[in-house]
Amino acid sequence: MSLNHFYKKDIVSINDFSRDDLNRIFKYTDNFKLLDHSIKGELGKGRTLGYLFYEPSTRTRMSFESAMASLGGSSIGIVDSKISSIEKGESLADTIRIMDMYSDVIVLRHPFDGSSKFAAELAENPIINAGSGSEEHPTQAMLDLYTIFKEKGNIDGLVIGIVGDLKYGRTVYSLLYGLAKYDVNVYLISPPSLAIRKESVYEIEKNLKLKEYNYLYDDVLKKLDILYVTRIQKERFPDIQEYEKVKGTYKVDSSVLEKSKIDISIMHPLPRVDEIDYRIDETKNAIYFKQARYGKELRATLLTLILNENPFNEE
Amino acid sequence: MSLNHFYKKDIVSINDFSRDDLNRIFKYTDNFKLLDHSIKGELGKGRTLGYLFYEPSTRTRMSFESAMASLGGSSIGIVDSKISSIEKGESLADTIRIMDMYSDVIVLRHPFDGSSKFAAELAENPIINAGSGSEEHPTQAMLDLYTIFKEKGNIDGLVIGIVGDLKYGRTVYSLLYGLAKYDVNVYLISPPSLAIRKESVYEIEKNLKLKEYNYLYDDVLKKLDILYVTRIQKERFPDIQEYEKVKGTYKVDSSVLEKSKIDISIMHPLPRVDEIDYRIDETKNAIYFKQARYGKELRATLLTLILNENPFNEE
Amino acid sequence: MSLNHFYKKDIVSINDFSRDDLNRIFKYTDNFKLLDHSIKGELGKGRTLGYLFYEPSTRTRMSFESAMASLGGSSIGIVDSKISSIEKGESLADTIRIMDMYSDVIVLRHPFDGSSKFAAELAENPIINAGSGSEEHPTQAMLDLYTIFKEKGNIDGLVIGIVGDLKYGRTVYSLLYGLAKYDVNVYLISPPSLAIRKESVYEIEKNLKLKEYNYLYDDVLKKLDILYVTRIQKERFPDIQEYEKVKGTYKVDSSVLEKSKIDISIMHPLPRVDEIDYRIDETKNAIYFKQARYGKELRATLLTLILNENPFNEE
Repeated sequence: MSLNHFYKKDIVSINDFSRDDLNRIFKYTDNFKLLDHSIKGELGKGRTLGYLFYEPSTRTRMSFESAMASLGGSSIGIVDSKISSIEKGESLADTIRIMDMYSDVIVLRHPFDGSSKFAAELAENPIINAGSGSEEHPTQAMLDLYTIFKEKGNIDGLVIGIVGDLKYGRTVYSLLYGLAKYDVNVYLISPPSLAIRKESVYEIEKNLKLKEYNYLYDDVLKKLDILYVTRIQKERFPDIQEYEKVKGTYKVDSSVLEKSKIDISIMHPLPRVDEIDYRIDETKNAIYFKQARYGKELRATLLTLILNENPFNEE
Repeated sequence: MSLNHFYKKDIVSINDFSRDDLNRIFKYTDNFKLLDHSIKGELGKGRTLGYLFYEPSTRTRMSFESAMASLGGSSIGIVDSKISSIEKGESLADTIRIMDMYSDVIVLRHPFDGSSKFAAELAENPIINAGSGSEEHPTQAMLDLYTIFKEKGNIDGLVIGIVGDLKYGRTVYSLLYGLAKYDVNVYLISPPSLAIRKESVYEIEKNLKLKEYNYLYDDVLKKLDILYVTRIQKERFPDIQEYEKVKGTYKVDSSVLEKSKIDISIMHPLPRVDEIDYRIDETKNAIYFKQARYGKELRATLLTLILNENPFNEE
Repeated sequence: MSLNHFYKKDIVSINDFSRDDLNRIFKYTDNFKLLDHSIKGELGKGRTLGYLFYEPSTRTRMSFESAMASLGGSSIGIVDSKISSIEKGESLADTIRIMDMYSDVIVLRHPFDGSSKFAAELAENPIINAGSGSEEHPTQAMLDLYTIFKEKGNIDGLVIGIVGDLKYGRTVYSLLYGLAKYDVNVYLISPPSLAIRKESVYEIEKNLKLKEYNYLYDDVLKKLDILYVTRIQKERFPDIQEYEKVKGTYKVDSSVLEKSKIDISIMHPLPRVDEIDYRIDETKNAIYFKQARYGKELRATLLTLILNENPFNEE
């Protein structure tokens, strides 16, 4: 039996991972970070990551590419549907199957719920879901949890605010599913039109203390250990005036910091537009760039575990 | 004298390779497949494949990229003419010469007959023709032959049907030139408007038993060991109604399989649109995905042979 | 103290490098070229070059990519602003910071003067300026100087002509700043409307003997050791007729060679359109393709020095 539970495993949904699994991944990531780059550079030698991005996401794609590169491996792939074989009328199933022949692990982003599950059933090699449908982005949830864990030393007992577009951001749902494995209080702050979809969190509400607000009230703010900020995307609004009205409401600036705990940590999946004032960047509270680096390291660790039976020489 | 005949050699036309050469490549590919990925990952270390694709072909490009990646090497390059230096008015000769300075082997796809020969004369490093003009795609022919060889144990004596667009598909001509080196019967099935160009096969008809049909007749079908299906491209028809008339005629589905030999092998260079019913995929007769994997492995083997004097430690 | 002065250093401006620095880089490049490709292929193992090209430049980008590939490293990045995160409104500062998390060295091309300096202040990892604003392209200047040095055995004492668009070509300014560190005579040949910007060379004119001409006069020609040709870009002219008038004037062909020193060396940063007659390519005087190869080798050497504390095992 393999000591490495993740060898050749798909990563389809954050819900497939127990709290124990996540702790294990966090510990592996800690170990991975200590390795010299020349050791890292052997872990993916001669291996290929194949990416299929049916929605553009430079950020996520480059995070995976750089993770694979740090292992000495390569990435090949296609971004959105402006690809000749897809234009020629090829089906998703065929594209996945061919990529399966060409690579050792497939990273898929696709607008449909269930697309990664479908791919995992088709492909012989492991699938990593890099965002599917409206709710799943498991590696983003893992890196968010890892960032919280590294920053605060634990996750249990924390008070976590999530602000912005909670209706359409798949990152938010994946993070909530992940947080539901821990004992935390979550405050959700959004305009009513961008509130969380109740049907999606119905199941996890049993485990998670969720409270909803339409404004970042001072009373809420001063309780938070973490403030997770998301982008409010203009394209989500049928009415541009509705967008203009809401746009600035949830902006995090120095006045927000002043009303917060001294050690509040500000997170953001990036890219940001103007949800966070640039002057926050230089404070110790801003951990969103660190979050990006943790993301690369956690993904490199996941790839290492998926591609190698016993990469860390466990006995 | 080098034991490896292919070291630093160009691959311009399938006609430059004897039956003996092909057998040697097949044997090397068999050996290559047995290597551990960490051994493979040394064979192209620090080497660069430069691709120049003046026609888009995600499939072929990714096959070469993944082949090079499996050797631990890198690929750089440009796809079609939406590239700034070409837009700035650079000639093909200059682009090839520069790529020659930047890479160890050049993979070229270009619409003109003779483009790869031209490139091979200009460049110091080897050229691999990844499709030129209307007839040459030598590595596709090699991988098709290798697939047939692996599947059937031999090529001599087989009855091979090729169905679809036989006029414009360069894959078909390269495959026929390859098959002409063996003792096979070939049945060509196409609508009259997409029949094989006689002037192109005049020479090889001396060696190849070719028969032409306009329909996939039951009598033909039951003789076939291999049915090689090609896509009928809408863009080839001046008249869309002509296309609609022909489109479904050569579709391979379960009724076709029922009338065939029990062990007929269905091949396709991919991507497919609807020439092959998806329900065929799960049968043992469908070998087109395997064909894609063989393609990667054969190309990785060719790159290994071209880039290394004695990669397999022969004495 | 590190023996390697360039370890973790930014390359922002050619003016930051002394004549001594340049000689050191040239010597390192000579040494690098002697290494076997499998040794080179270890120098960047598991390391990532992140490129950000806000202006397209296939040539420069591929030169860096192939340099990094020859070290066994990888390149990831984005070209111009057609990138989703930038389209989503991300700032240059954020894009640089994220790339800083994802890579070990950043290669930046950006239309603004000072962009690379700005990036170097933001990023923890080193920045290489691959062209900024109207004047800086330090690695191009280095490779031009290295090419001259290799071809002529020295730089001091040479007579160098630069012909073409001297107003808008940033390559020209970087080269002039570099030449100002040596004892050379420079003849600048351009139409009046594309003459050198005086304010830019005012400072270096103290060190450099500059003379300006509007035509490639025979008297000038016969003095030249080097003729550096640049492209006259159509898009620089407000009036297309103005362009047509000037276009052919500075073309280098066999009649130009006949009037030149027997060992004049013709250089060009490439791509060229028709500034140099193709028949020149086969002469010994044409060194522009060699220049491209030197460029790859010099950049690979710079990357090696930046990424490794003591790559050449100096004591």
